[in-house]
Amino acid sequence: MKTAITPTRAENFNEWYQNLIVAADLAENAPVRGCMTIKPYGWAIWELMRDAMDKRIKAAGVQNANFPLLIPIEYFNKEAEHVAGFAKEAAVVTHYRLKMIDGKLQPDPDSKLAEPYIIRPTSETIIGEAMSRWVKSYRDLPLKLNQWVNVMRWEMRPRMFLRTSEFNWQEGHNVFATHEEANEDARKMHKVYGDYMRDVLAIPCIMGEKTPEERFAGADHTYTVEQIMQDGKALQAGTSHDLGQHFAKSFGIQYLGTDGKLAHAWTTSWGTSTRMMGGLFMTHSDDDGLILPPAVAPYQVVIIPISRDENIDAMREYTANIEKSLNQIGVRVLVDNSDSRAPDKMWKWIKRGVPLRIEVGGRELETDTVTITRRDLGKDSRKILSVADLPEQIPEMLSLIQSDMYAAAEKRNRAMMHDVASLADLEKVLAAGKVGFFRIKYDLTTTPEFDGLMEKYKITRRCLDDADPTYVFVAKSY
Amino acid sequence: MKTAITPTRAENFNEWYQNLIVAADLAENAPVRGCMTIKPYGWAIWELMRDAMDKRIKAAGVQNANFPLLIPIEYFNKEAEHVAGFAKEAAVVTHYRLKMIDGKLQPDPDSKLAEPYIIRPTSETIIGEAMSRWVKSYRDLPLKLNQWVNVMRWEMRPRMFLRTSEFNWQEGHNVFATHEEANEDARKMHKVYGDYMRDVLAIPCIMGEKTPEERFAGADHTYTVEQIMQDGKALQAGTSHDLGQHFAKSFGIQYLGTDGKLAHAWTTSWGTSTRMMGGLFMTHSDDDGLILPPAVAPYQVVIIPISRDENIDAMREYTANIEKSLNQIGVRVLVDNSDSRAPDKMWKWIKRGVPLRIEVGGRELETDTVTITRRDLGKDSRKILSVADLPEQIPEMLSLIQSDMYAAAEKRNRAMMHDVASLADLEKVLAAGKVGFFRIKYDLTTTPEFDGLMEKYKITRRCLDDADPTYVFVAKSY
Repeated sequence: MKTAITPTRAENFNEWYQNLIVAADLAENAPVRGCMTIKPYGWAIWELMRDAMDKRIKAAGVQNANFPLLIPIEYFNKEAEHVAGFAKEAAVVTHYRLKMIDGKLQPDPDSKLAEPYIIRPTSETIIGEAMSRWVKSYRDLPLKLNQWVNVMRWEMRPRMFLRTSEFNWQEGHNVFATHEEANEDARKMHKVYGDYMRDVLAIPCIMGEKTPEERFAGADHTYTVEQIMQDGKALQAGTSHDLGQHFAKSFGIQYLGTDGKLAHAWTTSWGTSTRMMGGLFMTHSDDDGLILPPAVAPYQVVIIPISRDENIDAMREYTANIEKSLNQIGVRVLVDNSDSRAPDKMWKWIKRGVPLRIEVGGRELETDTVTITRRDLGKDSRKILSVADLPEQIPEMLSLIQSDMYAAAEKRNRAMMHDVASLADLEKVLAAGKVGFFRIKYDLTTTPEFDGLMEKYKITRRCLDDADPTYVFVAKSY
Repeated sequence: MKTAITPTRAENFNEWYQNLIVAADLAENAPVRGCMTIKPYGWAIWELMRDAMDKRIKAAGVQNANFPLLIPIEYFNKEAEHVAGFAKEAAVVTHYRLKMIDGKLQPDPDSKLAEPYIIRPTSETIIGEAMSRWVKSYRDLPLKLNQWVNVMRWEMRPRMFLRTSEFNWQEGHNVFATHEEANEDARKMHKVYGDYMRDVLAIPCIMGEKTPEERFAGADHTYTVEQIMQDGKALQAGTSHDLGQHFAKSFGIQYLGTDGKLAHAWTTSWGTSTRMMGGLFMTHSDDDGLILPPAVAPYQVVIIPISRDENIDAMREYTANIEKSLNQIGVRVLVDNSDSRAPDKMWKWIKRGVPLRIEVGGRELETDTVTITRRDLGKDSRKILSVADLPEQIPEMLSLIQSDMYAAAEKRNRAMMHDVASLADLEKVLAAGKVGFFRIKYDLTTTPEFDGLMEKYKITRRCLDDADPTYVFVAKSY
């Protein structure tokens, strides 16, 4: 059977993913090394994802703010683990003017900065410096800040949405008086992420703590949200860090306690990015294109009129009325009145993953009905509905699609999680080409033998099992 | 009389502005040359401004997208006027890695880029390149794109919100088949800006075309939205450019017409930025702090309980009920239950410009009333309202404040616009220290004598008079 995307997922998952992005008109590689341009349809999805996340972040008592793009190198250098983690991928600004020299536009040597800046790879340092001035007494705590910004980490092996040199994200930075509160909050934001993935993106996650080897550069604890893609590889979709007093000590974030004594505060940071879009696309899509959960679909319903010359006016009115009645109840709907052929329109919106497709031809027009198809279930779900019932039925169908998509992904996840009792067993299943998350005793993975397997099979430790942290999940990953 | 902000506007407008920003906790200078940190209260205002603008941009048929932060120098260099306009303030990225050399963290010489990048000062070039691939036939036109991003123009004389090296903005970029459509659209977006300033920010604007001397680098026509600050200086709050075929030719944006022939398209660009916040603050504030129009006030109403030990529980319930009833009708309201003293709370929210202040003491509690004061009119507007009437009265009062603030600013504008018949007259009023916009024959300003006045009195041509474009407005400006 011919599919809209070739190769199929089974034939070549990586190429399928690249072609999916083109077919759904989501993004393209930019003429800047490792960077991408997010096209209007992709950005409309991101705006919905961002707004839903922003609402949850604000509900957690966090305020948005905006810190500078550039970070002085000296700030960046203040926390040793942090700089070691990011120095190798830092874009450096060294001049502030261009000049035509020998017929070529170049950095003006006279504009060389005495102290260069780096483009933020993350903002613990510059926000830490601000917090050291903003926090004075226990009355100022907790202080919870977030920003939605672009960051840059020079990327040698870029992959659209998953790994790009520049990406958009939210980064939260909280300060507390005690370690207990900080750790509790790091776990709370971890849960906010997990709930968001489940309720908004319809993605079931493996939630757990990173092993010491995999922690964020400068964290005492890193809590991660891991997702299993359809090819069995892991995607880290969000992390929340208990930073202990690393940054509080490096930047002097101190507060006067109720006891009148000055003490170092405790900080956390937590982030999710446009990388989540890659997870969304690779979790739900099929060989005909994108499948979007209704919560983040720019259009939840598309209406395709199949008119003939003699009924074109009636069709316009008929479809406009349906559009209006759905708009009124808050459904995002589009009538595709473009001059393409009906089958082309149909395939366009299938590839773009619109949850519900409504077709209206002469017969529907005469009988006050529509033919409706669910994108996630395909043509077997086609049915005829009366126009009068749509305002009641459509929200119910959208809600059902959202929960069915979650259930389908969860079922697939379960089939991809395997227990292994020993490194020998692990090697056996890996050598046999089995994919997914392998659950194994953590201490087995701290041996030189495991290092060998990591190297050979490109697996990494994803996270400890929350149910029993003496176990760890290992998997190949994006 | 003691004011909350010293010096007052009359004493020293520039210092007053700096102190206003501190008093309202809006922003601070960042430890990065020419950059600022926007604090939570300032950012909350920006989010409301941004969302209101975004809605109007989308209503104009524009789609949001996201293009890269970095621009290859070669792209930037393709349009001669453009590069001349921006090369002198371009931040340049030359390396992609840091290394510890002689005990100092520095750009790694081995990571030097063969072709450096600049941080976008604006994105006509990189978006022009994308459009050259996205636009193929007349069917793809018009194409209307916008992005909300940060840009950088290295600033030697920074001033918070008005001129900072990094700033946040929206930049729209549209492409059309004909010059007529492009020019019409540049004027349309100009009007969108003017309407927004009037309806959302309550700021009356002088709308007109820039003279050739003041056009955007690479534009055929620049339409500007000029505002008059309380000290009589001009602020350019937004511009819309008819770019002719400059960028279409530099980047090869061509389309196959209905006649089957390939033709260059016509482009426009249009932008507004966080600079508008400076205009908002300098237009409406007074010597006691900020005055915010209700449309962009993070809190439209603040409730200050003045409780005693014996009525503290009753007061909590009483104010919580008012909060709830106002929340339900979409009013943004805060009950200040912090442990500060009531007068401190009152001054805090006066300085932050909350449109309506509600005070509740023992007498109000007993009589089911509140005492309410308008920020824009001050204590003369104090009155007592019954709690039961609030859901009806508050929205009316907010709406009245919005229109009264516009009327007050318009009255001040009118008093600051002066006709002058000759350069000699212009010099006379300038020498006498008169401030505001001076309307004069445009051709008088193309003489060497005018150049002398510009230099001596730091005035510039703001825009042609829309009612009679043989006249131009000149003024000092920010």
